[in-house]
Order: sequence, then C-alpha cells, then structure tokens
Amino acid sequence: MLNYNSNSITSLEGDHIHQLQKNILKKIILPRPLESHKGNFGHILTIGGNENYGGAIIMSSSAAVHGGAGLVSCATDSKNLTALHSIVPEAMFINYNNDVDLINAVKKADVIVIGPGLGENTAALKILKKVVLNTVEKQFIIVDGSAITLISDQQNLKTILANRKTIYTPHQMEWQRLSGIKIAEQSVSKNILKQHELAGTVVLKKYHTTIYHTNTPPSQLKIGGPYMSTGGMGDTLTGIIAAFLGQFHYKNYEQIVDAAVYTHSAISQKLSSSRYVVLPMDIIGELQNFMYKYASQAR
Amino acid sequence: MLNYNSNSITSLEGDHIHQLQKNILKKIILPRPLESHKGNFGHILTIGGNENYGGAIIMSSSAAVHGGAGLVSCATDSKNLTALHSIVPEAMFINYNNDVDLINAVKKADVIVIGPGLGENTAALKILKKVVLNTVEKQFIIVDGSAITLISDQQNLKTILANRKTIYTPHQMEWQRLSGIKIAEQSVSKNILKQHELAGTVVLKKYHTTIYHTNTPPSQLKIGGPYMSTGGMGDTLTGIIAAFLGQFHYKNYEQIVDAAVYTHSAISQKLSSSRYVVLPMDIIGELQNFMYKYASQAR
Amino acid sequence: MLNYNSNSITSLEGDHIHQLQKNILKKIILPRPLESHKGNFGHILTIGGNENYGGAIIMSSSAAVHGGAGLVSCATDSKNLTALHSIVPEAMFINYNNDVDLINAVKKADVIVIGPGLGENTAALKILKKVVLNTVEKQFIIVDGSAITLISDQQNLKTILANRKTIYTPHQMEWQRLSGIKIAEQSVSKNILKQHELAGTVVLKKYHTTIYHTNTPPSQLKIGGPYMSTGGMGDTLTGIIAAFLGQFHYKNYEQIVDAAVYTHSAISQKLSSSRYVVLPMDIIGELQNFMYKYASQAR
Amino acid sequence: MLNYNSNSITSLEGDHIHQLQKNILKKIILPRPLESHKGNFGHILTIGGNENYGGAIIMSSSAAVHGGAGLVSCATDSKNLTALHSIVPEAMFINYNNDVDLINAVKKADVIVIGPGLGENTAALKILKKVVLNTVEKQFIIVDGSAITLISDQQNLKTILANRKTIYTPHQMEWQRLSGIKIAEQSVSKNILKQHELAGTVVLKKYHTTIYHTNTPPSQLKIGGPYMSTGGMGDTLTGIIAAFLGQFHYKNYEQIVDAAVYTHSAISQKLSSSRYVVLPMDIIGELQNFMYKYASQAR
Repeated sequence: MLNYNSNSITSLEGDHIHQLQKNILKKIILPRPLESHKGNFGHILTIGGNENYGGAIIMSSSAAVHGGAGLVSCATDSKNLTALHSIVPEAMFINYNNDVDLINAVKKADVIVIGPGLGENTAALKILKKVVLNTVEKQFIIVDGSAITLISDQQNLKTILANRKTIYTPHQMEWQRLSGIKIAEQSVSKNILKQHELAGTVVLKKYHTTIYHTNTPPSQLKIGGPYMSTGGMGDTLTGIIAAFLGQFHYKNYEQIVDAAVYTHSAISQKLSSSRYVVLPMDIIGELQNFMYKYASQAR
Repeated sequence: MLNYNSNSITSLEGDHIHQLQKNILKKIILPRPLESHKGNFGHILTIGGNENYGGAIIMSSSAAVHGGAGLVSCATDSKNLTALHSIVPEAMFINYNNDVDLINAVKKADVIVIGPGLGENTAALKILKKVVLNTVEKQFIIVDGSAITLISDQQNLKTILANRKTIYTPHQMEWQRLSGIKIAEQSVSKNILKQHELAGTVVLKKYHTTIYHTNTPPSQLKIGGPYMSTGGMGDTLTGIIAAFLGQFHYKNYEQIVDAAVYTHSAISQKLSSSRYVVLPMDIIGELQNFMYKYASQAR
Repeated sequence: MLNYNSNSITSLEGDHIHQLQKNILKKIILPRPLESHKGNFGHILTIGGNENYGGAIIMSSSAAVHGGAGLVSCATDSKNLTALHSIVPEAMFINYNNDVDLINAVKKADVIVIGPGLGENTAALKILKKVVLNTVEKQFIIVDGSAITLISDQQNLKTILANRKTIYTPHQMEWQRLSGIKIAEQSVSKNILKQHELAGTVVLKKYHTTIYHTNTPPSQLKIGGPYMSTGGMGDTLTGIIAAFLGQFHYKNYEQIVDAAVYTHSAISQKLSSSRYVVLPMDIIGELQNFMYKYASQAR
Repeated sequence: MLNYNSNSITSLEGDHIHQLQKNILKKIILPRPLESHKGNFGHILTIGGNENYGGAIIMSSSAAVHGGAGLVSCATDSKNLTALHSIVPEAMFINYNNDVDLINAVKKADVIVIGPGLGENTAALKILKKVVLNTVEKQFIIVDGSAITLISDQQNLKTILANRKTIYTPHQMEWQRLSGIKIAEQSVSKNILKQHELAGTVVLKKYHTTIYHTNTPPSQLKIGGPYMSTGGMGDTLTGIIAAFLGQFHYKNYEQIVDAAVYTHSAISQKLSSSRYVVLPMDIIGELQNFMYKYASQAR
C-alpha cells in the first residue's frame, strides 16, 4: 500500500511530515453541484451513547448534520431519543439494542461512526461486532473512543476493518491500547509501521494532531490550541469527518479526512478569539458559516 | 376541473409552465386584519413521527407555529412528547395511538398534515386510514412522505382525498410510487394527467420544484439550490404550507400553496448567502422575519 | 368594594374607561432595593399542563422566571418534567398528582397561577379544588384558561376566590362561561356588574383588552395587535402577571396587573416591527431587556 | 491553621476584611499552557438534582462546562438524564442511585460539587454520606444548598470534610444551620471562629458576599446586586468554583475560589446593564467570553 519509499521511514521524524494548510479546505469544500439531492451527500450512521454518555453521540450526530450530511441516523440507547431530537431534530433515531433495525441501518449507511459514548462493557462489544460484521468494503467507518479500546484485542475485527475505508481517531492513550506503543514511545516512524498493519487511516489526536495515511506521508496540524481541551471535542470531530466523507467526492478520500480535521481546529481557533474555552456545541454552531466561506472562495 | 384546454397539454413542456415570482408573496402574505383572534388563523393538526422519525413531525409543527398558524396540535408517538415541547412549547400534543383523541383532533382541524416521519408499517397505515376517513370536504390535507407511499395502493383513500382540498408533496421517488410514472419518464404532460386523476394539488419536489394545480397550469420554482439537500427539508415545507393555508384566505387556495413553497426556497436562498448547507431549523427561525418583510411591502 | 359611584355604571361605556399608558410601567417597574434577596421577589407556583398541554404551563413558568420572580415552582404532570427543565432549568418541578407536595407548594407560594393547559376533566377539577381550598387570603391567585371554565359552575370555589386576591384572565368565550354574558352582549357595564359579583380582577382578553378592577374604573389597552393571535399568548401573560405581583409591592396591586398586561402587549408590539407573528417564547426572551429599560428610566 | 493573629479577630469587623478587586481575575485566569489536554483542567463531579430540583444540578454542571472544566460528570436522579443532555450534552450522566457508579465517579473526580437540588430527605443524606466517606484528602469538595443543611447535625461528616479541601457555600439561613449563629448575630468575628472549627472555606452568600478563608483574612465582594436575586444563582456559582478549581493551579487555592465568586458577580453586573434580572443561564452563556477577556489581559 505504500507508494512512498518505506525505507525512508526512519528519517521521517519531522521533515517528511506534510504540514496541513488552509488550501486543503479549498480543494475539498467545493460548491455543491446545482442538480443534486440529499442522496448525493451521504447517509451517515452514528453509533454510540449508552446510558451514561448520551451527549457524545448526540454531538457527533449534530456535527454531521451541521457539517452538511445528506441524512443522519443515530443508533443509540433508547434513553437518548429525546435529547437527540431536542438538540438536532434533523437526525433520525435507531434503538441500537434492536438488532434488525441496527443491521438495516448499517447496510443503508455510506459512512459509519462508531464509538462516541459507546462504553466498554460486553453490551458495547456485541454492538461493535454486529456493526463491523455487517459492513461492506465500500463503506467508510470512523472508529472512535471506546470502540478503539474495545477493538484493541479483537484481531478478527481489525482484519475486517483493514478491508474497509477505516479511519481510527484515537487520542494517545487509545493509540497505546490499539497499537501497543506506549505514549512516551509514540514516534512517527513507529506509528507508521503500526498504521500499516492496521491498513487504515489514523488520526492521532494530541498537541499537533497527526494523520497517518495509508498511501501518503502523514500530515500534521499546526493550528488549534489548549482552548480545545474539553470533553466532547473528539465526538464532534467524528461527525465532521463523517459529513465530509459523505458529501465530498475527492478521489483520495484521506485528504477529505485531512480537511475535516483541519476544519475542526480552524473553527476552534477562530472562536478562541473571543472564548477562553471553545465548546463542542460552539464548533457545531459555526460549521455552516465556516464551510460557506471556503466554498465561496473556491467558486 | 380543468379550466384551461387540456388538449394543449402535450405542448405544455416548458412554455406553459408558470414561473413563480416574488409577487406571489405580496399577493398572499397580507397584513393581518386588526380585529382578529387566533381562531382566524387556523388550527393545524400535524400527524406523524414514529419512534424513529420524531424529529420530522416536530419540525413540521414548529414550522407551522413560526409560520403564523393560530393553533398547532401535533399527533405523534408518546415518545416524542418531550422533544416536541422542548423545541416548540407553543404546540399541543396528541397521542396518535389514542383513537378518541386522534379523531377529535381531526374533526377540529382546519388543516391536516399527515406523513412526516409516520413510517410505512401497518400501524402507520391504520392511523392514515383513521385520519382520512374522518375528514370532511372543507378541510385541507397535506399528504407527505411515508403517507404518500402508503396511500399509493389504497384506492379508496385516494378517492376520498379527491374530494378534499388535498395537497400531495412527493419527491420524485414518492411520485413514482403514487403516480406509477418512473422518475425518468416524469414529464410535465404525464404528471398533469396523473394529477388530474388524483384531483389534488401536487408539489413535486426536485431541482426546480413544480406545482401541479387542479385548475390552472403548473407553476415552477426557479429559486432554491443544493444547500437545501439535507434531511428534514420536506417536513419543514409541510408546516409552512399548513400555516399559510390556515391563516391566509385568498380565494384560490392553490396560490397559497405556491406562496408557501416559494417562501420555503426563498428563505433558504437568503440564508445560503452565509451557510454552506441550510438546515430546516434555520428556515423555521427565519420565517417570522421573512413574512414580516413581505407583509409590510403589501401595506 | 366600589369606591366610585356605581350609579354611573351605565354611563361608563367608553368615557369612564381608563386608557393604559406607558407611565404605568414607570410607576410599577422600579429599580430593586440594593439589599434584597430572592425571598423579596416572590415565590410563584404555576399549576397546569396535562399530558396534552404541557407547553402551556412551561411557557407560564418561563415567563415568570424571565419576568423577575424570585422563585418559580411548576406543578404539572410528571410527563412535563423534562421539557420544563430543558426550557427553563431555573424552575422547580412538582408532580401535581402528589397531594402532599401540591398542597405544601400551595402553602409556600406568594402567587399562584392555575389553569394553563390544566384541561377540563374531573382530574383537573380535583386539582383545582385542592388548590383553591388550601389558599389563604393574602395570596394572589391568577385563574386562567381551563380553570376558568371549570370554576364556572363551582359556586363554592368562586366564593373562596372572592376572598383572595384573585385575577381572572378569560378570553371572551371563557368570560361568557364564567359570567353568563354572551359574547355579543359583553358590554362594559354588564361586565362590571358581574365582576363585582366575583369580587376579583378580570383581565378580559380581546382586541383592546380591558381590565376590570375591584375598586377603580376599568382600564383598557390600546396597544398590541393581530401579530399576537397565536397559541400560548395567554399562558405567557399569566407568568408575567405572577412575576410582577411577586416582586413589585405597589400598594394597589391591581395597577401591578395593569402594568403586567401592558408589558405583554408592549413587548409584542415592539417585536412586531420585525416579525409577522410574535410568539410567546419571543416575548419571554425579551422580558429582561424590556423591564430594564423602564426601571432605568425610573431611576 | 491561622497564619494571622487570631487575637485580632474581635477588631476584624470591617477593617481587616480584604476587598476583592478585579486583579484577582488577572492573577487566576491565566492563558492555558500550549501543550495540555483535558486531563489538565480537572474532572468535575456534580451531585444533586432530585425529582423536584433537577434544574439546579443541570445549571451547576453547565456552569462547570462553560467555565472551562476538562470533564464534567453529573450524578443525579435518572429523571434528569434527558434535560441534562438537552442543555449541556458535553456533560456525562451518572445515576446517583447506582452505588457502584457513584462511588467510582467520586474516586475519579478532582473536584466534587454536592448539594444543588439534592433535597433534604433520608435518601439525600445517604448519598451525601456515601460521597463524603469515599473522598480523599487531595479532593476539592464544594458543599452547597441542601447538603449544608443535611451536614449540620452530622459531626462525623464535618470532621471528614475538615480534612478535605472543603468549600461551603451557604446563604445566611444555611449558615445559621451549619454554624448555629442566628442570622442577626452573624458578625465577621463570630463567623471566623466557626469557620475555624469547620476548617474549610466558607462563601457566605449575601448582600456583599464574604469569603472566610482557612489561612488568610476574609475577603468581601462589593460588586453584584439585586438583579441576582433569583432562583438558581447559587447553583451556578458552584459550577464556576468547581471549574476554576479544576483548571487553575494557583498555589493558594482559596484565591481561586475568590476569583470564581468574583467572576460570578462581575458577569452578573455586566449583564445587568441591559437586563432587569440576570438569570443563571445568562451567566453561563457569558462565561467563555468573560474569561477570555481576563486571560488575554494577562498575556
């Protein structure tokens, strides 16, 4: 899968990492074709939110809606139905404990987000298995949060996901669990090797988030800041990635992921000019305006 | 019912379609009479929203409230009670599984919306039948979404609706189901013939939405755009049509429908000057201001 | 109770009605004393909101909170708990089917609102009786909506309320039920006679709302307009009256009622300069700013 | 614990009280370190909200989120789950009747708020005991509202809390219960003696709120005003104190409490320039902007 010289990996620290710039937005966030309908912009399925962490999957779903997804369905605990509709009535509800409904939803989805607020117990693992086993090659799957932890010792699931368009979005501790590389030892070269094993995209969230691609050198984010250090930020990111993958059709989809990650931090940075801490719901509220700006520059 | 020469139908493609213009708003959105009360502005009943699609009927209800309806009642699954009140406390709740309450509500309504989020199972069909069978001639009935699909093979319901002031709001696939005309073959002339059979107004939602009237040539919308391609747009439209039919009393009610459809797209177009995608809830938030502007021009 | 010559009642039509002016606001909405706590601004208890009409009591409660009440408790159906907290977390919840809690709440309240969304069945009547029977002379009781209808044939309740500081807020049909005077025959002189029987304040809501006082001639509202003709307006008014009675301590409390009614319409009129219809939630959102303006003029 | 001469206590009335000034903000609200993650900004656990007072703990939680806490978990009655997520999806939910979950949450927390809307019955006392008994020395514990009343006659709990970083936030009646000093007799000198017994910080909320510290003279607030006399203000304060203690690491943590109390009133004062009454939710909405302003002055 490598189309750049893997022998050069050891020298990759620093100089072979691509710095993400604003131009990634102009390349990806294009004006919509005039004759189009919601089917052109992707059906997103977000899966997560147990009794304790309902807000996580609601924020993911809301980010997907505001980020331009054609349709968004949220598979979650029935306890979260009302809060979901109260925050984002545009999203549809699926009871994730109803196997038939869940599997049907997986089959209909173009992009799946699994993990925000899913939890790590056996019930969560069962849902995760059901979902992964029912995906097909063409689907995008964003694996986040507790789903990363759960999948760490599930080799069969990792093997299936290696044959999907999978995007992992771990923070450093989750990456330690998934990759086996301790945080202190997470160097670019080691990360690349592990990411090759997984054969998926890895968005490693940290100070200067780095995105490891399947076919091109990693890219890194120099924007964003500590105003983003608050609960729910990662959940929101999954929704933006999902919306972007659902609606934009750039041939190299990993650049779409790059654009989504960049958008998440760029909005935060913008909002930090008047807020001490930037909250996930603030970012969601700004998505439509932010995307408009770049799409109109592209015109 | 035709008061224009139906022999000319085959030549209708293009040149006999009326282009909707802004002036339709000035004709319909008039200042309210000084001495009036909420009874003058219609009692709207919205029916839909099963366990999965509660947001749909909530958005329809909220659009009706913000669009100026005198009173709005929402008949839906009891699971949607709280989200309904959280989003639009101005609307009243009816449990659509309570036959007595549902039928009483149908009898009291001036305008009925049925379909947003109703679903297509047998429970939904039973509700649909109960509603249609309890309507009377003078009532407006807006048939949307799953209700269109359900009604497609229910000839007796179609016959009843032919004797009501019925407005169908299908997208192209739903129109295929209702009319039997495949999407690729949905020409203006064929659509007109089918619409005559149904003897109702048909708002065919697509790029350049076209409205087929019972007595006048179709009208078409040249405004709006792909920023409207997102889930829930159609639900919101039903609420606006309902509010307009409830409160405006222009003699040819199909022009009121035209104005509502135009309003929905005109607001979207306006909001698209700062948003990449325009969400249903955005449109609802703009309705009161938009309508004010046209009513004050009419003064 | 009359301190103006009741012989002159027949000549009261028109010329003896006091026109409410803006100065009523400057007289009532005074700056708060520096050393004060929430106990000085009244504990409001709103009672209503059955399974169908939960939004009504939520809007009343929210208006009371935004209108400056010290504390607001809402006694309603348990189905409305979550929507209440979602819209106005500042308000406290009481299950109105819990007799002990309801009666305790009645005893603690300075001002009671009963009626918005209460419904008219026997359960509603039982609640109404329980409440009225547990009030004491010094309490303000605002009787609205279905509570007016229910009380119409309950002479014992009317007798109790004649010995409270009662404010009835009927629209014309409810006044017909309460007074026995048909809408077409509701003249000022007849209304005054009936209001004397009730020995309470009557806010008769209509085009040019008129307020019948126990000791002074009626006052009338010349502001407001048809943009207010939408469901929930009256519910919101009850909350404003309650907040004003709870926090302002003008010796003639009926002028406080006048100021609350004036405020409700004045805010609506102001908002109508950019909205075709003014919604109850819009008024609530404007209360704090509006009251500030008049209080700062008073300083 | 006194590092100033306790013999001088009787002469403390007035002249030994430190007046809090704006500079406390510049000292505490510092720009965040660039390389940081949410773990650096504290995990807050808010505990309270029974069936009647859910809004209280929701406002506390929301204030903590908007005030910059890294993570916020809310342990409350299961009836409050949906309203919590609807208002602040960034917060996580814990069922406070689930002992295992509650105790785990206590163990993970850096800062605990207990009391807003907790109620005063035996169930509330059991929760309070469970929480206090599971805390450790390094944790901050903010004891508010009903928890203060409950703890008044629980000497063993007071003894444990004397060995924690405890902040009591009573209003005058709650302080009477906790200290045994009648409101009329609550002089600075008496309060100081009692506060020494408790060996915790005491934020005595009143006109000119005074903060009694464990090691330094009391400080007093000269800002704020009667526009803050409305239900829920104290709940909101607890969330701000918690967020500040969680994220700021000034060596004398009692000055962090001072800054939080000052912030609460300073925001209220600012908002009072356009609002007759300032609501808790208004303060929450302004926190991010307000904190930004002071942090950028510090840079």
